[in-house]
Parts: sequence; structure tokens; C-alpha cells
Amino acid sequence: MNNKLLVLGTMAYDAIESPFGKTGKILGGCATYIGLAASQFKIDCGLVSVIGDDFETAHTDLLTQKGLDLSGVATIAGEKTFFWSGKYHNDLNIRTTLDTQLNVLTKFDPKVPEQFKDASIVLLGNLDPNIQGAVLDQMKAPKLVVMDTMNFWIESYREKLDEVVGRVDVLSINDEEARQLTDTHSLVEAAKQLQALGPRYVIIKKGEHGALLFHENKIFCAPGLPLEEVFDPTGAGDSFIGGFAGYLSQRGKITFDEMKTAVIMGSAMASFTVQKFGTECLETLTREQLHQRILAFKSLSEFELT
Amino acid sequence: MNNKLLVLGTMAYDAIESPFGKTGKILGGCATYIGLAASQFKIDCGLVSVIGDDFETAHTDLLTQKGLDLSGVATIAGEKTFFWSGKYHNDLNIRTTLDTQLNVLTKFDPKVPEQFKDASIVLLGNLDPNIQGAVLDQMKAPKLVVMDTMNFWIESYREKLDEVVGRVDVLSINDEEARQLTDTHSLVEAAKQLQALGPRYVIIKKGEHGALLFHENKIFCAPGLPLEEVFDPTGAGDSFIGGFAGYLSQRGKITFDEMKTAVIMGSAMASFTVQKFGTECLETLTREQLHQRILAFKSLSEFELT
Repeated sequence: MNNKLLVLGTMAYDAIESPFGKTGKILGGCATYIGLAASQFKIDCGLVSVIGDDFETAHTDLLTQKGLDLSGVATIAGEKTFFWSGKYHNDLNIRTTLDTQLNVLTKFDPKVPEQFKDASIVLLGNLDPNIQGAVLDQMKAPKLVVMDTMNFWIESYREKLDEVVGRVDVLSINDEEARQLTDTHSLVEAAKQLQALGPRYVIIKKGEHGALLFHENKIFCAPGLPLEEVFDPTGAGDSFIGGFAGYLSQRGKITFDEMKTAVIMGSAMASFTVQKFGTECLETLTREQLHQRILAFKSLSEFELT
Repeated sequence: MNNKLLVLGTMAYDAIESPFGKTGKILGGCATYIGLAASQFKIDCGLVSVIGDDFETAHTDLLTQKGLDLSGVATIAGEKTFFWSGKYHNDLNIRTTLDTQLNVLTKFDPKVPEQFKDASIVLLGNLDPNIQGAVLDQMKAPKLVVMDTMNFWIESYREKLDEVVGRVDVLSINDEEARQLTDTHSLVEAAKQLQALGPRYVIIKKGEHGALLFHENKIFCAPGLPLEEVFDPTGAGDSFIGGFAGYLSQRGKITFDEMKTAVIMGSAMASFTVQKFGTECLETLTREQLHQRILAFKSLSEFELT
């Protein structure tokens, strides 16, 4: 295995309202969050995405300075970057989309840069399954294909979605999506059905309640870090999977034990993201802060047998 | 500390409907579940409760055979035992009460048997706070007072409830109750407010998502064991707190580390209870089965730091 991680996802501008305030147009998109989280690890991480010519140089600079390779990010002249605006309600688990402007996304023809075609790990962010499939077609036998959350695509693109899911090793989705996809309430049963579609590993994200990792008949449960304040849940799932894949890519080993720690890394990343608006927390995160948080996760769930 | 555990709670008959079936009149009541769970440990456990003369000898025999002391259980002649009937909906998190017949409960004047007045641990099950207070008044300086769930009493008995909560060391409630009591969504904030009322330890039960234990500034998170099938959630909370208090009573030590393991014991007990209707699973549970389940909890949440 090499330490290359190829990430497919959106780069976007968001406008977010939460009970704690309101942002103007801020940096967003799943590839952005995934990249920032993955940049905490010693890996080669390349993004495949698309932006308009309104995308600010300050933002590409930020990502480049984090060591991310943007040669797979296409700019479409005369078009605007994908825009999403949403509002979180009081309990922060419910959000309403106020506006979605696909813009450049409608013309996205993903091109994997030559130097990333042999990446050992491919991470497919929340996007049209046709685009996810097109990226997989360009890869040379990756060791691990990870696919994240695809709420929007479940209803209208089910057939194509199932086809891509069949090519995936790790499927990471949230509890609602898992139930929607499998039409069952039990997450254990849902995970079984999802594994039967192809993925050897299934991660079910439960928001503040943590995440479950399923593999064969084994289950690992990562706790949700109880936080005094959650500011903005945007990007939590993306940060999670970015931390997960970044860690595995650095380790260069795919075992259930490595996966467990990777799920904790992802959970830690998500716990940082929600503490500030947008990408603010990830932008300044240090390795020492990450390490301290991982220790917090460890002490949170450790107990003695007597 | 001695190994005596005094339990206050109801003994009842229940009739339960769940998506998996329907029971006739079966044994129920929080003291019953608590006692059965606590009977897994090497302790002296006495129940303070009240029954009518319709309570079957087979059921008192069952509890006595488990080693439970029933000398604090009063029988009121000519009256019927407390009866509750409820229905669980498809996702099992929502239940509707179909019928409640208080019967003997309206005449309950709790008497702590002489030999249990010096019990080191007192567990107050879900009951009228006036009755809980009356039991505490009869105890000789217990080392640990544990109070469980009191949904029903929050609205109408708030003042008395707060008074009893002020005399408690461990408060165990579910997430909804915690939010209702403190008028906040954040469980961390809720736990802080609850600790300020008196309890040094606060446990927030989150159903299938496990439980959180708060003490000073420390938090422990017990995972929920992902189960393929949940048959009947009745008594899960009671079994939880019975396992928790039973374990602590056997250990004879009150530290945060002991509390953590106690929360896992409680979680294991609850996980058994929900797998069959009513008390069926607890009635036949062996120590070896319990031990195996504790190991399952350990492997569920353990991960390596690299």
C-alpha cells in the first residue's frame, strides 16, 4: 500500500443559520472538509472536484498550504461554484435546506490526476453516483474504496447507487439513511443487508450518539464525545470520513483493529468541526489537539473488569 | 460498607403489546426487575413494596428463591396489585399507556425492615417522591442513595421531587427526563444542572444509544449493545439500575472507576431484559451469561492507540 488518498467530492460555498448565529458565504463542500481532516495525517491527498471562477484564491491557497493536491480540481470559466444554504433548528438534529444552486456541479466531468490513479485508498464523498462510478473507472486497483453518505441520491438514483455500492469496501452512512436504504429499524439488521450489497465494512453514524462499525460478525461502537456546545453540525460527517480515511492511509494497513482506531480518529475530527462554524475549527487544528482529543475518547469509554 | 441493598419500588402485573406479540397478565413492577437484576450479585437485597392479595405465590416464591428478602413487602387484604398495560409502537422507542390501575399503591405506607435500616446502599425506584422520602427517613446514614427515573412525577410533584433529589448521591434518569427537568437540549449542560441539585453522580440513559455517567468534570460513556432484535423494552431501565446498584453493593466501594463498571453491569442487564417479554430473560440468567456479555461490552468499545 502507498500513502496516497484520492478524494472525490464537492467544493462549495455555504451560508448557515443555527440557533447560535448566522454566517455569510463561507467555505464548504464535502471535499473541503474531508481534505482538511485528512491533512492532519502524513499522506499524499489529492482532491477531485469542480469550482467556478468565483472561487477565491485565499481558499485554494488554504487547502494547498495544508498539503492538499488540487491538480484534480477543475475550474469552469464563467460559472459559479456550488452553493448551499441551510438552517439548523433548536435541537440541531433537524436542518432545512434554504437554497441549493448546483452551478458548476451540473457540468462536472471528474478527472483523476495521473499521479493519483494508483492511490491505495479512494474516498467517494456525497455526490451523484454516476460521477462516483466515473472516478472508480479511472483508478488502478485501489486497495480500499470508501463511500460516504448519499441521502440525496437514495430516491432518484437507486439503481446506479446500488451498482456503485457494489464496488465499495467501506460504506459510511448515517442511521436514517441506513434505515431508509434497507427498510428496517434495527441497525444490526440494516448493516447486514448493506454488507450483502458488497461493502465488507459498514459504518453507521449516529450523530451525537457516536458511530457503529460492522465487519463480518464483529461490531465496534465509537462513543459520541459529549460536548457542552455544538455550534454547527455542517461538515461533521465529512470530517469524520476524512479523518477515518486519512488515518488508514497513513497507517497503510487494513485490519479491523486499524479500522476501529480510524473510526475514533473520524469521531474526534467531527467533534472539532461542530464546535465552530464551517471549517473554522479544522483550519487551525493542531496534531497535539487531535492527540489530546483521542485520549479523551479513550478515557470516555474505558472501564476495568474486576 | 456492608453488602446490604435496600430497594424501594413497585411490584405489579403488566400486560404488554409490542410489534412482536402480546402478553397476558405478567409479572412486572420496578422493584421486581431491580431485584432480579441485583440478585445476580453476592449481596443481601431487601425489597420494600406493596402487593394485593391477588399476587401469586409462584411470583413471591420466584423472588425468594433468587435470594431476595421480601419482609418489607406489605400485602393489603381485599385490594389488588398495581396494574399497568402498555403498547410499544414499531420503533419501540414510543410507547402508549393503555391502562393504569394504581390499586394498592394508593395505600402504600412503606416500612423498612429492621435488618435493612443500616443498608449501605438504598435504591429508590420510580415512585411518588413522598414515599421515597419516607423510606429515606427510616434509613440509618446510608453510604449511597440511588434514585431512578421519575417521568411521571416531574410535572405534578416538582417541589417534593427536588427535595428528594437533594438527598440523593446518584440520580439515574433518561435523556428526555433530563431535558425536561433542566429545560436544556445539551446533556452535558443538563447533567451539570442536575449535579447542582445535589447528586454527586448523574447517569443519563439513552436507550439503544447507551448511557452517560457524569461525576465532577468526568464523563464515562457506556455503549448500547447493538441487538438484532429487541422484543420488549419494559423494565430495561429498572434492570439497568438494579445491575448497577447490585454490583456496587457487592464491591463495597464507591469510586468513579467502580461506578463505570457498574454502569456496564447495568447496561448488560438491560440488554438481557429487552430480549424477551417481561422478566423472562432475567429469571433464567446465569452468572456465566452475564460474564460473557460484559466481555462483549468490553470488546465493543475497546480500541488501540498507535
